[in-house]
Amino acid sequence: MMVIMRKDYTEEELSGILERLEEIGLSGHTIVGMERTVVGVVGQVYPELADDLETMPGVDDIVPISKPYKLASREFKPHNTEIRVGDVVIGGGQTVVMAGPCAVESEEQLMATARAVKAAGAHVLRGGAFKPRTSPYTFRGLEEKGLQILKAAREETGLPVVTEVMTVRDVDLVARYADILQIGARNVQNFFLLEEVGRVGKPVLLKRGFASTVQDWLLSAEYIMSKGNRDVILCERGIRTFETATRNTMDLSAIPLAKRLCHLPVVSDPSHGTGKWYLVEPMAMASMAAGADGLMLEVHPNPDRALSDGAESLTFENFRLLMERAKAVGEALGRPLASEAKGPARA
Amino acid sequence: MMVIMRKDYTEEELSGILERLEEIGLSGHTIVGMERTVVGVVGQVYPELADDLETMPGVDDIVPISKPYKLASREFKPHNTEIRVGDVVIGGGQTVVMAGPCAVESEEQLMATARAVKAAGAHVLRGGAFKPRTSPYTFRGLEEKGLQILKAAREETGLPVVTEVMTVRDVDLVARYADILQIGARNVQNFFLLEEVGRVGKPVLLKRGFASTVQDWLLSAEYIMSKGNRDVILCERGIRTFETATRNTMDLSAIPLAKRLCHLPVVSDPSHGTGKWYLVEPMAMASMAAGADGLMLEVHPNPDRALSDGAESLTFENFRLLMERAKAVGEALGRPLASEAKGPARA
Amino acid sequence: MMVIMRKDYTEEELSGILERLEEIGLSGHTIVGMERTVVGVVGQVYPELADDLETMPGVDDIVPISKPYKLASREFKPHNTEIRVGDVVIGGGQTVVMAGPCAVESEEQLMATARAVKAAGAHVLRGGAFKPRTSPYTFRGLEEKGLQILKAAREETGLPVVTEVMTVRDVDLVARYADILQIGARNVQNFFLLEEVGRVGKPVLLKRGFASTVQDWLLSAEYIMSKGNRDVILCERGIRTFETATRNTMDLSAIPLAKRLCHLPVVSDPSHGTGKWYLVEPMAMASMAAGADGLMLEVHPNPDRALSDGAESLTFENFRLLMERAKAVGEALGRPLASEAKGPARA
Amino acid sequence: MMVIMRKDYTEEELSGILERLEEIGLSGHTIVGMERTVVGVVGQVYPELADDLETMPGVDDIVPISKPYKLASREFKPHNTEIRVGDVVIGGGQTVVMAGPCAVESEEQLMATARAVKAAGAHVLRGGAFKPRTSPYTFRGLEEKGLQILKAAREETGLPVVTEVMTVRDVDLVARYADILQIGARNVQNFFLLEEVGRVGKPVLLKRGFASTVQDWLLSAEYIMSKGNRDVILCERGIRTFETATRNTMDLSAIPLAKRLCHLPVVSDPSHGTGKWYLVEPMAMASMAAGADGLMLEVHPNPDRALSDGAESLTFENFRLLMERAKAVGEALGRPLASEAKGPARA
Repeated sequence: MMVIMRKDYTEEELSGILERLEEIGLSGHTIVGMERTVVGVVGQVYPELADDLETMPGVDDIVPISKPYKLASREFKPHNTEIRVGDVVIGGGQTVVMAGPCAVESEEQLMATARAVKAAGAHVLRGGAFKPRTSPYTFRGLEEKGLQILKAAREETGLPVVTEVMTVRDVDLVARYADILQIGARNVQNFFLLEEVGRVGKPVLLKRGFASTVQDWLLSAEYIMSKGNRDVILCERGIRTFETATRNTMDLSAIPLAKRLCHLPVVSDPSHGTGKWYLVEPMAMASMAAGADGLMLEVHPNPDRALSDGAESLTFENFRLLMERAKAVGEALGRPLASEAKGPARA
Repeated sequence: MMVIMRKDYTEEELSGILERLEEIGLSGHTIVGMERTVVGVVGQVYPELADDLETMPGVDDIVPISKPYKLASREFKPHNTEIRVGDVVIGGGQTVVMAGPCAVESEEQLMATARAVKAAGAHVLRGGAFKPRTSPYTFRGLEEKGLQILKAAREETGLPVVTEVMTVRDVDLVARYADILQIGARNVQNFFLLEEVGRVGKPVLLKRGFASTVQDWLLSAEYIMSKGNRDVILCERGIRTFETATRNTMDLSAIPLAKRLCHLPVVSDPSHGTGKWYLVEPMAMASMAAGADGLMLEVHPNPDRALSDGAESLTFENFRLLMERAKAVGEALGRPLASEAKGPARA
Repeated sequence: MMVIMRKDYTEEELSGILERLEEIGLSGHTIVGMERTVVGVVGQVYPELADDLETMPGVDDIVPISKPYKLASREFKPHNTEIRVGDVVIGGGQTVVMAGPCAVESEEQLMATARAVKAAGAHVLRGGAFKPRTSPYTFRGLEEKGLQILKAAREETGLPVVTEVMTVRDVDLVARYADILQIGARNVQNFFLLEEVGRVGKPVLLKRGFASTVQDWLLSAEYIMSKGNRDVILCERGIRTFETATRNTMDLSAIPLAKRLCHLPVVSDPSHGTGKWYLVEPMAMASMAAGADGLMLEVHPNPDRALSDGAESLTFENFRLLMERAKAVGEALGRPLASEAKGPARA
Repeated sequence: MMVIMRKDYTEEELSGILERLEEIGLSGHTIVGMERTVVGVVGQVYPELADDLETMPGVDDIVPISKPYKLASREFKPHNTEIRVGDVVIGGGQTVVMAGPCAVESEEQLMATARAVKAAGAHVLRGGAFKPRTSPYTFRGLEEKGLQILKAAREETGLPVVTEVMTVRDVDLVARYADILQIGARNVQNFFLLEEVGRVGKPVLLKRGFASTVQDWLLSAEYIMSKGNRDVILCERGIRTFETATRNTMDLSAIPLAKRLCHLPVVSDPSHGTGKWYLVEPMAMASMAAGADGLMLEVHPNPDRALSDGAESLTFENFRLLMERAKAVGEALGRPLASEAKGPARA
């Protein structure tokens, strides 16, 4: 942490800073530059210190130096984290595809979709049983009934299942059915929920928040990891910007950036990220090219009759075409599609 | 809801839309313009319909017409909602000041602050017992011990208490101690929590999210109101933008805008909104001038030793000076400071 | 400037940095902290240095310390700059009101408006002769004919005139007619234009750009000042954010912040800032309360027939009411309305 | 254009709207819905009409239907525009690579770079002779001397040249030297400049502004096209968002979106878009996968000694590696690298 002094600071004010640092067991190294004097803080700093020092007389600004996350950082663990789910490995250099409807609407709808995405080569089945909705007056999911349908689909197709958990109370319930627990964008700073899934022995897929910087997102992963669960998969899904032509603005540079800063796998969700089915395929290919470890895609038997997010869902045929293209692009990139899951997944 | 057809739509595609609408009990009125053909949807539309129609052949875009919130809207209830807390009324045309430390750190710290803000004319005591923190490695509040200290301060000073609740599990606990339950910016779309505080018989102060549009924010209020609790106080506290010189960017135009669209009181939190103590007073005055029903302010005995958000806290003396200025400005605006709370508040 | 080394830097890399600094006449002070090693750069640094050093081996990040603007900074000139226009002083502690139509449409329209705003107490007449428009197919101003009409209005009413100049070629032309040259938000980084108005002996009103940080804005002022013209008035007019309910999001905290960082007067334009006439009055009052040195307001005889920006224009009557309120609020704030301009302004 | 009436509108107010529309030669079709009454405006509407109607009594909101750009729209011209520069075609289904230093610094630096990028397979040479810089105190280019150096490089290597023009006055000068005129992000709404390059017989590369929506960007292209120059190349280079870990946030979804809405070629500039050399290659590949017609890349002999933007420049070796990867990825995508330019370009 660096303390930048005001141009007109007094020697007394500078001494005040140095004394304060000593008082709390740290030390300060003063550099007198031509334009500014700066005090470098040496010792084990804690984050609140910035706020405290900023209010002291003579101080112009505080500049943090250390990164605030540890367990997630590549400096802490240089090698990629690989997470096994069923027979596929996420983060191991191959591209893993998670596909399915936004919401589980019925057994018929989910089973048809599960079979179609499996046939087209998907590795994981996605589907929401609990749906966060901006309005209280919209369809919010089949809840436990939806989880049971997902389980049935896993048993038939062998595809492991990723599904969202929205509240602490439901963590155990969802963990009984799901292979990967999903934390949605709206809950990225629901810290009690993060800690609760940190205590569960299942991988967690953590979506980036609408307003999360990459650093915030890694700190949310840190919450989960600090409770013992190291199997966190990051999922880029767009941030909120002034552009309204797409539902969100996908920040694909966050994929290589997050992978440089941390060792966790990063997947991409171009369905929510764009909100337009016709942008899903180009942004899926772009995500792979940016280095994503996987894709999360919405597929629906009849997108124009979906109870949720129809506008961004692919038809079975469009998903099949996307997978063909992903195969070719993945090979050119040296990130081939993961080999198909074989047999029932381990729950 | 309006369906905008593509320029090159076919008659068959248009018929498809009209038939689909009839199938679900609605009807469509077609307007053939010079540049575009538009179908106005008549009947009780539901929000998902936009997504469904958008994927139908021949459709260029869908434009919603109705506002998605009802109970919160001024069209539903034209008159201002007034919320009584202790002896003050929020939303009744006077300015209510809520002040105290960001976090309750000790009985000594809170009692001293409570006495100081009471002496300077504050109406409500604020203080966090549960603190949402971006990093898992920072001080997160005294929890129930903090609530007990708040209760003691209320008993001594008579000031009602507003404090944050972060998770469904703690709603009953916090409601036993607090006069107003606060929902923080990070939980503005934690829908289970919103519904839970909607079942409690205490007013709720709902902060705007970092990435919430005014409409999103009103929909979050709608979640609370839809469970029966109509006493919601909105709190503007800044949104996330590209500007980094302040912690957030306060959107003061949201105050008169929200008051035009809905009937709920709107208060302003310039401490979190700016993150800089020296911007708090001008932005507090500006909030009043923009029409805020109240202010929420951080005050701390020693801002440079605070365990949380010291950089944005006022000293006792600065708070006193702010209150003097607020008195004069409030009178000029026709929004005087509320008269002081007398005697112990009703819990 | 501080050079933050990577955790795994080598001694050779550190030496490389220190040698490079000496090679260009600077020196480096190394601080070895517990988590990071930092090199403080001492000497006259230049901005490109950050980019250069950032690519050197062993470097993690570069942190600039000095502010990149000089002439505009309060450290360079501690006292407020006061700018006299006609008989009013902008930046002298009183509130100056600039009012008039968005665009000059006809002599009749402008003269009626000039008389009305003068009668209600405005100090400066605004009106666009050259209009920047997002679409090439919209009304773009009367050009020199508009300037002549503005001149006629000044002669009759005595109000000095502020009007926009959009291109280098027109600077001399506009300067012959205007008392204050306005640089619009879209031209805030049109550096040749900034330099050209920097060579003119008239004050310049510099709007903030849609995407300008406060620092960018001050650097644009620095461009003007670096050519010799020190009479720059900053004008906050909203930035672009995710919120679409208002045309822009006014960042009122930028007013006290800019006044703290620099010595120039800062005015506020709530008409463009909000885009909604019914938000203009509350945001005008809020701007005053935030410390603005003046207001810039759109007034039109028939807002529903304006050729430009009718939705944000006040009627004569609404402007009169706003001025009454501004009078009361200004007195309470200790920033009274400037006394009326008397007699013809000096061109 | 649709006029949305307030819920409590009166018949008199509705008649007022209809009469006003007839008065200006349009007509209104009224749809009385369950929640809202809407008036569809039929006839040749003009953009200002929205503002005018919005202020009329009884009106709640105005919803535009038509797109405000014409010449640029795919509805106006369904087939892709192909632009020939030297021996390459931009927009014809192959990937065109423009590479070179951010700024021309010396003949030696530019010639070395031109030879290196040519050897690695680039098709167009980029280099700035006029540099827009946020601070007035930084290197701003060699101006005409820089143009002469670019010309010499074209003569030796045969690579056509793209370079920026910043002001109306320099358009003819730059057009004498350049094969493609570049309009920078800061000038995307410098309308006089747009019109001036619209009168020149050379292709124009139009960068997206920091705060431009896709629609704004297409309107800026429309300005150029409306003056007769139809050869506009759009260039995505990132927008300004809350994320500060990268210089800008690249909005790659804008590439397929712009190509759907308009017929112009779209290229991508990941060097400026990210500001970090180590993100350039993944974002270049991602841009190709998103459908870009070309790439614009910064290459410098010694990035750590560049006078401008060193942190985002590739070394010769890194550029060569990127081109190898681009070759493989382009083939997998069906968008191979364009065949090399042969012989001197036509100036």
